[in-house]
Amino acid sequence: MFEKILANVKEKTPLVHSITNYVTVNDCANIILACGGSPIMADDIKEVEEITSICHALVINIGTLNERTINSMIKAGKKANEINHPVILDPVGAGASALRTDTVFRLLQKVKFSVIRGNISEVKTVYAGSGSTKGVDADEKDEVNENNIDEVINFAQELALKTGAVIAITGAVDIVADGEKAYIIKNGHPMMSKITGSGCMLTTVIGAYCGANYDHILDSTAAAVCAMGLCGELAFNKVAETKGGTSGFRTYLIDYMSKLDGELLNGGIKIESR
Amino acid sequence: MFEKILANVKEKTPLVHSITNYVTVNDCANIILACGGSPIMADDIKEVEEITSICHALVINIGTLNERTINSMIKAGKKANEINHPVILDPVGAGASALRTDTVFRLLQKVKFSVIRGNISEVKTVYAGSGSTKGVDADEKDEVNENNIDEVINFAQELALKTGAVIAITGAVDIVADGEKAYIIKNGHPMMSKITGSGCMLTTVIGAYCGANYDHILDSTAAAVCAMGLCGELAFNKVAETKGGTSGFRTYLIDYMSKLDGELLNGGIKIESR
Amino acid sequence: MFEKILANVKEKTPLVHSITNYVTVNDCANIILACGGSPIMADDIKEVEEITSICHALVINIGTLNERTINSMIKAGKKANEINHPVILDPVGAGASALRTDTVFRLLQKVKFSVIRGNISEVKTVYAGSGSTKGVDADEKDEVNENNIDEVINFAQELALKTGAVIAITGAVDIVADGEKAYIIKNGHPMMSKITGSGCMLTTVIGAYCGANYDHILDSTAAAVCAMGLCGELAFNKVAETKGGTSGFRTYLIDYMSKLDGELLNGGIKIESR
Repeated sequence: MFEKILANVKEKTPLVHSITNYVTVNDCANIILACGGSPIMADDIKEVEEITSICHALVINIGTLNERTINSMIKAGKKANEINHPVILDPVGAGASALRTDTVFRLLQKVKFSVIRGNISEVKTVYAGSGSTKGVDADEKDEVNENNIDEVINFAQELALKTGAVIAITGAVDIVADGEKAYIIKNGHPMMSKITGSGCMLTTVIGAYCGANYDHILDSTAAAVCAMGLCGELAFNKVAETKGGTSGFRTYLIDYMSKLDGELLNGGIKIESR
Repeated sequence: MFEKILANVKEKTPLVHSITNYVTVNDCANIILACGGSPIMADDIKEVEEITSICHALVINIGTLNERTINSMIKAGKKANEINHPVILDPVGAGASALRTDTVFRLLQKVKFSVIRGNISEVKTVYAGSGSTKGVDADEKDEVNENNIDEVINFAQELALKTGAVIAITGAVDIVADGEKAYIIKNGHPMMSKITGSGCMLTTVIGAYCGANYDHILDSTAAAVCAMGLCGELAFNKVAETKGGTSGFRTYLIDYMSKLDGELLNGGIKIESR
Repeated sequence: MFEKILANVKEKTPLVHSITNYVTVNDCANIILACGGSPIMADDIKEVEEITSICHALVINIGTLNERTINSMIKAGKKANEINHPVILDPVGAGASALRTDTVFRLLQKVKFSVIRGNISEVKTVYAGSGSTKGVDADEKDEVNENNIDEVINFAQELALKTGAVIAITGAVDIVADGEKAYIIKNGHPMMSKITGSGCMLTTVIGAYCGANYDHILDSTAAAVCAMGLCGELAFNKVAETKGGTSGFRTYLIDYMSKLDGELLNGGIKIESR
């Protein structure tokens, strides 16, 4: 169902400007290339406006934020808004420190986001300005499951209406919603939580997909979530087959993203809409 | 002999806060996950105390230190001391510049370390405030071998008494010692020195093991050293079998860490105590 | 033809000081080790002079430049000039922002470079202080091909005379030239542009090769360009054989660099001189 979205990415080679953390930045650059985009990382306040202007999307990830880069995030975000580029927020570890939580609030005040993607704990922090976060992973008691899924969808849609952004809550089950429509996505594999950067990489793929499909932010986000999850499943199969481990899994995950097309995605997506 | 230590890591999923270099940070995060912990990298002075408070161990690595992060290291270290979290020091390149040597001295004055891990040149710099260091690798003339091993053990134990830290000196032969007891470990493979980050990764694994075993710092450190060395041996075997090279070696090293358990470790450790 | 150059690298284990970006820094460190050198990354202004003094070459890469590291680049570059170490410039994204372009001009004024390596758009920016750059990739209309190759060689040689540096322009076809001689190199594979860091890694290999061969900067640069291209070809063959993707390609690329010797290189180079 997302063939056109993927085809646009391959055709347009969207440039994605990322202001991101130094932990997973290499994986993010590589997966942007793998999915058909082109990455640029630039965080000096003197160049972020210019760089974002020559790109098609901006990704802001607060994974290893500091005062210098926070100011660059705000400046780049405002510029991207001005020229109507999609801006994607990954509120890594929101709730784990006042600096992270406050930065998310500052960013939400100053920048209009097209998509916000996080685990349930992070997104709850985005919503409430409070909430328990176990470091950069989701708190277990927040986990999305069959019993609370309607509640989580309602929450996501409320936040979507409040912020104007598509909300992507990822975990064992993924929710992607705007104010009107919601997708439930069941692609993915638990081994994705055994490598660093699954979330960050997904956020940058969302950036690439949205950068090539400005008018279909909800579907582009859902397509990226499905794509990442499916690549995780395929990568796990290869790990099992080769008796590998988590680092091989990371390699295969990006490998599959580089080989994914609309047909392969179509054959493997597990999605329903509400 | 270290089954209980590994079991505690798997059970407790220790959160490890690292203030580290941007060269090997991704490998460090991935190997923390692979060994059963959960990584958080955060270096802004406004958040390091909060972040370290929600974690179980703090790793300080001076590989790409700068004035901003040095202050964060000290602040985080003091906080971790206050709440009795283990703090691990990796004095990367100590002796290679006055900044590195002076920073190690400042850190030793202000922070009490549970473990200090480095190559022999780095640890000699920690001890003496002098010494020749060939960049970030050990100087050849400092190499630990059968002829000087007793001398190195004495040196390690003296430094352990002086600092109150477990001292881990790693190289072709590894020494792990506190003031009373010393381990000689002969796991490992020379290819570990042909990738970047073998040392940094080991230090973070020590962080995870100590974070889940507060009361057994010496044995946790020795277990991590054995585990890393054994994974290096297994990784080399796989490189030889697949006719691979150093980058595949890195992948397999982390893969084996993700598959390691007490039984596998027990079958492969090469350790003696003095 | 480059056996002696490679042999010197293996024999001397040149230490390469890099002030570089945080996107590809890990790959750069690993490929320096793979090709026979030893990497040190250090960017604090208080230590860059000392660090560069204990090394054999300095690589300056502006991929994620900021005001703090720009000053360190200049200071390190001046010191390296003073002690006659080769200094290699990778002007990543020059032309994409005023900050990048201006920094390249500042660097060229203050530091004498031994080698400048970039894609054609970046090198044109170095030359002209203007030019269109599509982010960090070369602009398509600048592409080097059979029709404009003489023109590009002339341009490279003019820039070589102007700067005193060997100029390496890399793309589908690579040009390496000083004021007197030029090499045309046709090693390489298009998949090299589907991973991040192919260019950055090549620049650091040039650093290692020049660090072990001070008196043969042109040939060392050409050897590194051939070596990287050939490893790219071999890596692609392995990707095709294993039905892998771009992340496996990155692994194999570094693997082959770790296995490359003069004989293997000799058997695969595609080079002509003018």
